[in-house]
Amino acid sequence: MAQPIKFGIVGCADIARKLSRAIKLAPNATIVAVGSRSEEKARRFIADNGLPATTRPYGSYESLLDDAEVDAVYLPLPTSLHLRWAVAAAGKGKHILIEKPTALCVADLDQILEACETNGVQFMDCTMWAHHPRTAEMEDFLRNSDQFGQLKIVSSIASIYADSNFLQNNIRVKADLDSLGALGDVGWYCIRAILWASDYNLPKTAVAFPNAIKNEAGLILSCGASLHWEDGTIATFHCSFLAHLTFELVVVGSRGNLSLSDFVIPFEENSAPFTFVSDSGFKELVKGWKSLPSKKVVSTELPQEALMITEFSRLVGEIKDSGAKPEKKWSVFSRKTQVVLDAVKESIEKEFKEVEIVG
Amino acid sequence: MAQPIKFGIVGCADIARKLSRAIKLAPNATIVAVGSRSEEKARRFIADNGLPATTRPYGSYESLLDDAEVDAVYLPLPTSLHLRWAVAAAGKGKHILIEKPTALCVADLDQILEACETNGVQFMDCTMWAHHPRTAEMEDFLRNSDQFGQLKIVSSIASIYADSNFLQNNIRVKADLDSLGALGDVGWYCIRAILWASDYNLPKTAVAFPNAIKNEAGLILSCGASLHWEDGTIATFHCSFLAHLTFELVVVGSRGNLSLSDFVIPFEENSAPFTFVSDSGFKELVKGWKSLPSKKVVSTELPQEALMITEFSRLVGEIKDSGAKPEKKWSVFSRKTQVVLDAVKESIEKEFKEVEIVG
Repeated sequence: MAQPIKFGIVGCADIARKLSRAIKLAPNATIVAVGSRSEEKARRFIADNGLPATTRPYGSYESLLDDAEVDAVYLPLPTSLHLRWAVAAAGKGKHILIEKPTALCVADLDQILEACETNGVQFMDCTMWAHHPRTAEMEDFLRNSDQFGQLKIVSSIASIYADSNFLQNNIRVKADLDSLGALGDVGWYCIRAILWASDYNLPKTAVAFPNAIKNEAGLILSCGASLHWEDGTIATFHCSFLAHLTFELVVVGSRGNLSLSDFVIPFEENSAPFTFVSDSGFKELVKGWKSLPSKKVVSTELPQEALMITEFSRLVGEIKDSGAKPEKKWSVFSRKTQVVLDAVKESIEKEFKEVEIVG
Repeated sequence: MAQPIKFGIVGCADIARKLSRAIKLAPNATIVAVGSRSEEKARRFIADNGLPATTRPYGSYESLLDDAEVDAVYLPLPTSLHLRWAVAAAGKGKHILIEKPTALCVADLDQILEACETNGVQFMDCTMWAHHPRTAEMEDFLRNSDQFGQLKIVSSIASIYADSNFLQNNIRVKADLDSLGALGDVGWYCIRAILWASDYNLPKTAVAFPNAIKNEAGLILSCGASLHWEDGTIATFHCSFLAHLTFELVVVGSRGNLSLSDFVIPFEENSAPFTFVSDSGFKELVKGWKSLPSKKVVSTELPQEALMITEFSRLVGEIKDSGAKPEKKWSVFSRKTQVVLDAVKESIEKEFKEVEIVG
């Protein structure tokens, strides 16, 4: 059996704790190094997260990237640091698993993707739900024209209720660190889900909803937009740090619909539900629905983030061991998401003018 | 026990079959007359719907209104005829139960409401779901600030898939009969649900989504809008004749959320579910949700339309027998719905400009 892929974690953000567990759970991955701005912090992260004593702590990101044994890096850094460190990592031949949003703008992301291309390394962003087996099952339904028909409407809400500590201190509300605010954080998932539902056909235009809510530094705490395709398909999303935890996704086609309420983080780790219905209509005298929605619960042995690590590591392994090329679809998905995100941001800045989406 | 309220049905539209059954089911209502443009059609309606042989058929709406025994009329006429016949009915002292949309515009509705006021008759529109006991239970949750907190986001979708026969022939797509199209039909329910969720606080502005889909006569087949309150609350809705049957409503507050997928017509007549959650959040390492949504199923002996008839008839009975005043809240709810609907229509006509909502 092939050697597990050796990860270096670049930055000890809170989310890195979750991903460390995921790397430990994945059968084909292992953590060999942790880099932080101080070696002490890296050392503490290794101890706090039960990583092997052999895990090497580094007091700078650069020194971790110089560790020849590291195959791949996980980058949970603030978004404003992605460009610099993803390009540096690719330059050292490290495969890249990067937190979302991938970059501050698509121009930055393009530099990252170019560095990955030049160096032949795999790129993947951390949209974990894409790797849940539920997603594949829902895709089977959505792509089945008999059951679902033609896509008409997508509606998505992703919100987490930020307490006052978060609103004061979290990097996701710091303009110099994560200037995309709620749009880059929870909004990323909405946009990605909409693209996923549309089989990654880019919409033609985006129009932000009026009156996005911002903090004193001008950072978005809550916003939304409608996205428009030429055939009349329309998607809307709301993303917020100010509303109760909600991860709603509703996808409506001409012949069926599908919905779920935990699309980003499943209610429970080992199983996840969705609801769907096809070719329903009203009973005589509109006494009820001819056919009722069905609920399907999809089990998984590994949590979605461990499945993400497993898939990423499989791709890296094929490059390392069999000379395969990097799988491009993941950078395509990231880029389309970032393109739409940029358009929504531009529409917000232009007081909800309609903005053309250029892929 | 008081006499049941005696209904006259003005117009033999398809929906009148459902409402005839509802009047028969209601313990305090009965049908005594049916009016159509031809007496033959009225006669056939009486026979086809199993109404008593004593039910009087009329070959004109006017002659039905002249029937002194009729207490109340149910008006399922095309919207363009509402103004004329509702005003005429009120003028004859008939209480008015009217199909939605209530009128072509709020100015027309105001004439109807004025006629009702002048003549001391009860007014109610046929938003049936408002009378389901599920609605009251959901209201208890939404109005409980500990459980739900402050309203932040409402999202609603109401669509019915119209076959080609409907799209060619149904009055709801005829510009001269029901010029509000899908906005007046399924869109009415979305707007009403949004107002209900906001405790009938009118939003400040409406912005239609670009590219509403219209038929050759310019009638709306699919559209949507965002609605905005000064405190940052935002609601969106999609309404369509071109997408699979979908009646989604999601209401998100700062401390909880609520959702249901059959808000207009419950899946089944005798019970209806909704899902809600309060004060959830993530488990350690975001392994899942701290508390899961609960599903509540609300039973009802009578279908929602029969409960509507029962409540309307109760109010009429109190006016007739005890000299009570008409209950104003129903005209207030109708009027607010129509005001928002007008603003959305104006925004569509003005190429999705933001339109101020003036109550």
